[in-house]
Amino acid sequence: MHETDRDLLPEGLGDRLPQQAWAAQHVRRVAHDVFASHGYDRVEAPILEFEKSLASRMAGVQVRRMFRFVDPVSLRLLALRSDMTAQVARIAATGLANAPRPLRLSYSGAVALIKGDGLDPTRERLQVGAELVGSDSVAAAAEIVELAIEALKAAGATGISVDFTLPDLVDTLGAEALPLPASRIEAVREMLDAKDAGGLVDAGGEGYLPLLYAVGPFASAIEKLAAFDTQGVLASRIAGLREIAERVGDKARITLDPSERHGFEYQSWFGFTIFADGITTSMGRGGTYQILGQTGRNPEPATGFSLYPDPLVEVLAGQDGERRKLFLPLGHDAGIAARQRAIGWSTVAALSDADDPVALGCSHRLEGGEAVAL
Amino acid sequence: MHETDRDLLPEGLGDRLPQQAWAAQHVRRVAHDVFASHGYDRVEAPILEFEKSLASRMAGVQVRRMFRFVDPVSLRLLALRSDMTAQVARIAATGLANAPRPLRLSYSGAVALIKGDGLDPTRERLQVGAELVGSDSVAAAAEIVELAIEALKAAGATGISVDFTLPDLVDTLGAEALPLPASRIEAVREMLDAKDAGGLVDAGGEGYLPLLYAVGPFASAIEKLAAFDTQGVLASRIAGLREIAERVGDKARITLDPSERHGFEYQSWFGFTIFADGITTSMGRGGTYQILGQTGRNPEPATGFSLYPDPLVEVLAGQDGERRKLFLPLGHDAGIAARQRAIGWSTVAALSDADDPVALGCSHRLEGGEAVAL
Repeated sequence: MHETDRDLLPEGLGDRLPQQAWAAQHVRRVAHDVFASHGYDRVEAPILEFEKSLASRMAGVQVRRMFRFVDPVSLRLLALRSDMTAQVARIAATGLANAPRPLRLSYSGAVALIKGDGLDPTRERLQVGAELVGSDSVAAAAEIVELAIEALKAAGATGISVDFTLPDLVDTLGAEALPLPASRIEAVREMLDAKDAGGLVDAGGEGYLPLLYAVGPFASAIEKLAAFDTQGVLASRIAGLREIAERVGDKARITLDPSERHGFEYQSWFGFTIFADGITTSMGRGGTYQILGQTGRNPEPATGFSLYPDPLVEVLAGQDGERRKLFLPLGHDAGIAARQRAIGWSTVAALSDADDPVALGCSHRLEGGEAVAL
Repeated sequence: MHETDRDLLPEGLGDRLPQQAWAAQHVRRVAHDVFASHGYDRVEAPILEFEKSLASRMAGVQVRRMFRFVDPVSLRLLALRSDMTAQVARIAATGLANAPRPLRLSYSGAVALIKGDGLDPTRERLQVGAELVGSDSVAAAAEIVELAIEALKAAGATGISVDFTLPDLVDTLGAEALPLPASRIEAVREMLDAKDAGGLVDAGGEGYLPLLYAVGPFASAIEKLAAFDTQGVLASRIAGLREIAERVGDKARITLDPSERHGFEYQSWFGFTIFADGITTSMGRGGTYQILGQTGRNPEPATGFSLYPDPLVEVLAGQDGERRKLFLPLGHDAGIAARQRAIGWSTVAALSDADDPVALGCSHRLEGGEAVAL
């Protein structure tokens, strides 16, 4: 340990300086205001829990990607949360088990992973989301997609597009229209996910080939999917997707990629990924899923989404807005200063004669009871 | 691991259900709004860091009370933050080393300890605070005390009282007016802190006895302290306390306890503890201190405070406000619903015929484009 080490942060962990912190606060506030306006009540969960309770309520949570350590009090394994959805599912199944359904909840906070994703070394991210517990209907899915779009737009994202998928597509088709030996299901899924036509044929999934072409802008892709579904096995799903697209099509560009499965391991019939202009990674994803109930109770259907707005925070932080700060000279009238704050000024009080209003970022100075531009 | 364990949280860790989460959001928003109105810019730091950087920048941070574990990437010891002040000090000394002084920063977030304090088993708390970096003057101290009071009042606390202390009192007196052998300084400090007159005499600190009586309401206690300070060693500190009390005396009840030191281990000449009606524990504390600079730079004076508003959150969560939620029946007009939200309604859209507006907590129902009371 060198003395300079006290200045360092671990790889993948960083601070937010004022502009970034302002932007992050803005995104969270605006998102929660939108959520609340649609009846979604905020809940909060601890930053650490028993590893098992973070991992066991939903499929697809990867325990080995979490920071894990022994609790000196219980001597059991704790983990830093890597996903707040599992925590909200726990709250819905325990503390809010008896609240009326559908139950609308929202959340935001930091989540941590021991290693970043691929090329992105970030190990702590902001997660913001909403969950509609008690329903995975088309109406629930449409409300959730619309809410995600509205929250992102209100936070400052532009050019939103949403990519729909059918996460349990292979299970559905394999069960009825296009039977697959159990030994081949996983391979067919993987080749579809990889968009690998040759691999799909090799895996014995040639019947699934048309799915690779039912992708792109929603209007045309859904027609291709419908044409492929000669036996009508997907009819209710296709009708559902059309209804959701109908409701949100004027708010975002909609695309379809029915066999996309990566990241939707715990989703059931419907999933979506959301993108915004100028941001190369996805802004988040969502869909329908099942929540394991309190022990002895049945699982519950649910629909929700998680956004990871850090890239949007960076974009907003770079848009330097007008800064209106009012310098209060030594000996200023405290009552006048309070009235200036009440009408929206941010004030900076001089502590000594050495304080320079311009260096301190002030745009105005209080003189004779008035804000005078510097 | 029993199956039911997925429902459990570790001792001292808990969720916030909607009313609590609303109250916590309210307190944080209002506090940051007050901070911003006084020119304090928010910063954010990661929830985990190298143990050494959390511990080495300020005295008094107890490493053994932190959750610590090895980072699988760097193979070095990380810790969950137990105090955000040390993180803000690091930011001031590194990322904002070249920002003009005085530098006004604010923060809020969760901090965690492996064991609760005394009778309180809570292991995760909300910390909210502000730091004025570059000054520990009387003007800085007055601004910081005033800011803490204003933030707590805006958040909904009532009957605020502030207890002033002089954390380095024994060092100051021992150096000049009342010399003590080095071997006795710690014992004298402890007996003063314990308000133990007999122990103080036994420790050889009989000259310090009058300090035990210079406590209570500020106006009388400061007179006793001034009378005790026959050599004027404390004159500048007494004048400083009077100036601060003068500025904030109309906003809170002020008391003095000059020899209180518990919790002020890293404070220099001035410290304060803040209380509110109906809350038995303190709401937080603050004072003047030194920040170790970036390696090769000098330490900087600073003044700040940390609030721990969880008990206030509980009080506010119990004050059930009027809930105005508007039920949107199936087939409602989306444009009318959006306009209702724009004028402040929180809406709850029916997903099916089974949805009961009253069970879902709605106070009104949209009928013919109007909100009708249920």
